[in-house]
Amino acid sequence: MTDLRALAERLMSLPGFTRAVDMKLLQIEKGRVVLSLARRPDLLQFNGFFHGGVIAGLADHAAGGAATTIMPPGKIAITVEFKINFLRPADGEAIIARAEAVQPGGIIGVVKVDVVSVREGAETPCALCIATMRRVDIPEGKAA
Amino acid sequence: MTDLRALAERLMSLPGFTRAVDMKLLQIEKGRVVLSLARRPDLLQFNGFFHGGVIAGLADHAAGGAATTIMPPGKIAITVEFKINFLRPADGEAIIARAEAVQPGGIIGVVKVDVVSVREGAETPCALCIATMRRVDIPEGKAA
Amino acid sequence: MTDLRALAERLMSLPGFTRAVDMKLLQIEKGRVVLSLARRPDLLQFNGFFHGGVIAGLADHAAGGAATTIMPPGKIAITVEFKINFLRPADGEAIIARAEAVQPGGIIGVVKVDVVSVREGAETPCALCIATMRRVDIPEGKAA
Amino acid sequence: MTDLRALAERLMSLPGFTRAVDMKLLQIEKGRVVLSLARRPDLLQFNGFFHGGVIAGLADHAAGGAATTIMPPGKIAITVEFKINFLRPADGEAIIARAEAVQPGGIIGVVKVDVVSVREGAETPCALCIATMRRVDIPEGKAA
Repeated sequence: MTDLRALAERLMSLPGFTRAVDMKLLQIEKGRVVLSLARRPDLLQFNGFFHGGVIAGLADHAAGGAATTIMPPGKIAITVEFKINFLRPADGEAIIARAEAVQPGGIIGVVKVDVVSVREGAETPCALCIATMRRVDIPEGKAA
Repeated sequence: MTDLRALAERLMSLPGFTRAVDMKLLQIEKGRVVLSLARRPDLLQFNGFFHGGVIAGLADHAAGGAATTIMPPGKIAITVEFKINFLRPADGEAIIARAEAVQPGGIIGVVKVDVVSVREGAETPCALCIATMRRVDIPEGKAA
Repeated sequence: MTDLRALAERLMSLPGFTRAVDMKLLQIEKGRVVLSLARRPDLLQFNGFFHGGVIAGLADHAAGGAATTIMPPGKIAITVEFKINFLRPADGEAIIARAEAVQPGGIIGVVKVDVVSVREGAETPCALCIATMRRVDIPEGKAA
Repeated sequence: MTDLRALAERLMSLPGFTRAVDMKLLQIEKGRVVLSLARRPDLLQFNGFFHGGVIAGLADHAAGGAATTIMPPGKIAITVEFKINFLRPADGEAIIARAEAVQPGGIIGVVKVDVVSVREGAETPCALCIATMRRVDIPEGKAA
């Protein structure tokens, strides 16, 4: 499990979108990953809510993490497709995505992600995402 | 149509995600919106491709625009849900999202979005998105 | 609740697909509907598993029921869209769809449906469906 | 191409759902399949429209066919997941599903399916489906 966390944190800390928006890894275990993202002006829509693309990006990343945790060493999950329903405006100080693998093993993985908006410690569901992932080799130079 | 373009550009230039990532409006007409996004290190995955959340965010925004163009004045489309399939890595210098409304009128709108990756002028399809939009009133203070 | 059950059973017993395939209502309460469908040669694929369209039809119907239970009297849910992932072959003697509303109230409802395949009393998850429903008036002559 | 048509017709004529509802193959070529289904009381909802599950089943089957046409001999496409938007009531004498592969080759295939309702020769779009397919070996005994 230490390896999972180390891999997840290393991937998230590489230059790119996840580091730029500052996604945080809250929890990782077999089949499950929890990520959070704090409110920042550049992540919002014009109405002050988190932008749908940002919510989807967090959910997608959590899904990839959860699917990867149940793959053999040296493999990583990439996204084939996802579908996301926006349930309520994400108007909190942060959003949290909880991803859980619902189809174990194999080349294809399916992950359910619940996204909540957090305000003063209280959580409100704001999105529900189902992602289909595919197993590929970890690109060379990223796995060390 | 001038009004459509003016509204779209005003919404995109308000502080927030769309301005932070620098989405550009290439085309807008009744039922159709084309947006582009140039490659930037903070929009990529660790492997150098555009991040899925960024691609989804561009597609979502284009969908909202296309659905809004066929709504009555004073109304705007918000996203109920979308589904996106990633077809190929988006490894180009820019991505372009072409959104087309496929269900005219009413409270619910459906939009198809084709996203291509552009490299040296050549386009490669990289994602296909179907979005379900809902008609709401433009928030006060945003429409003037 | 009696009214919900009565309405659900009346709608399912009207001539049409649900009666032809013989869907059964196992449970109905606020926000939740459980339906089952017994194996029959005309509901299968060539390989002997339940056909994807049949599984989707059961999930869709359960979703409509669950969304309707939390709507005001005189209203019914119709399907805007759904997405279904097939997790494992549905090779049992029956399939059961458990639908649960995840977005209460309003014009739009979102429902999560878990479908299991049942063999000698043991359940295996075979599909996961997320449906977006819309509130409309019950057609005249159907509500009495 | 003869082989494709022969395979498709053989699979559809085996006992099961597709034969029971009497799906017809209108067209098949590389990357493209068109199926139709005539109106019948047992395929409808209580309101007289084609049932969503039946529409989805036709779309799913057309998608599988289209994806299979671009796979190597001995392989067949099975459905990983699909998403379907219902655009208008399918109230015609028949429905036609036109499936087109949008992602060529590989283990994963993506197919777009447009479903129209036909009344006195005039077509009205009634559903849009995107399906993700996976390549598997044709089960023994089915390919001969």
